[in-house]
Amino acid sequence: MSMPELCFEDFPVGETLKFGNYLVTRDEIIAYAKSFDPQPAHLDEAAAEKTVLGGLSASGWQIGAILMSMMCDEFMLRSSSLGAPGIEEIKWLRPVRPGDRLSATRRCKSARVSNSRPEMGICVFDYTVENQTGETVSTFNVTQLFGRRASMADAP
Amino acid sequence: MSMPELCFEDFPVGETLKFGNYLVTRDEIIAYAKSFDPQPAHLDEAAAEKTVLGGLSASGWQIGAILMSMMCDEFMLRSSSLGAPGIEEIKWLRPVRPGDRLSATRRCKSARVSNSRPEMGICVFDYTVENQTGETVSTFNVTQLFGRRASMADAP
Repeated sequence: MSMPELCFEDFPVGETLKFGNYLVTRDEIIAYAKSFDPQPAHLDEAAAEKTVLGGLSASGWQIGAILMSMMCDEFMLRSSSLGAPGIEEIKWLRPVRPGDRLSATRRCKSARVSNSRPEMGICVFDYTVENQTGETVSTFNVTQLFGRRASMADAP
Repeated sequence: MSMPELCFEDFPVGETLKFGNYLVTRDEIIAYAKSFDPQPAHLDEAAAEKTVLGGLSASGWQIGAILMSMMCDEFMLRSSSLGAPGIEEIKWLRPVRPGDRLSATRRCKSARVSNSRPEMGICVFDYTVENQTGETVSTFNVTQLFGRRASMADAP
């Protein structure tokens, strides 16, 4: 295994990083809805206008998937990631519409070495997803595990 | 708007419902990963074996999307759903492998009428996603909003 560029030590508490640039298309919203969330608000303009979202909008699960995609592009694929045990909270605050351009902000809320697995660090990140006008559309509080640099150097 | 079959009143506190039957294929795991979560564990068998998941496994976001799909099929599309403000907690407990057959259990943890919008009820559900051997692979704690039956009858 080659040395990952980003290890646990590269995610210090308090750090803020802005990243991502993801254009959400009408076709992608509808394709995702057909596969996973075929509710009227995500599937069809006319039906969506009669819903609480007031028009065609991405599934909340799609917003999470888009955040994951931006995270992979920005840092995950060159990190010592050891996975994620879960998410502490997701809030869907505003609809995501066709033509919206999404970006994200990552804030490291806590970072500590695991007691039971000292080769691993545990980070808690607050992510926000913003649209092109700077409005926050969604927030995600995610626990993520990363190998520590010293343990990566020891790996065969 | 026609009267939905399932309204807030149909989700009583304490009720448990088992539902869903979703076969997860290798091709679907890889296709999802390519679109949204291109980490080695979700993308390629040989690379996945060297990861903490020990073999090709579905993205955690895909497990959520599959749960949403099963929820739509079982009850959401015939309900008075008014959306979901968010998720209180997700836990990814075990990997989901190619060939796994997933089902879900819904338990209504709380249900109350909204103070600010008395035509609406607020339910909190604990969902578990299980594989074909009955192991829980993931849990989701989701707040969902539903129209009350009386308000639906009043709608134009």
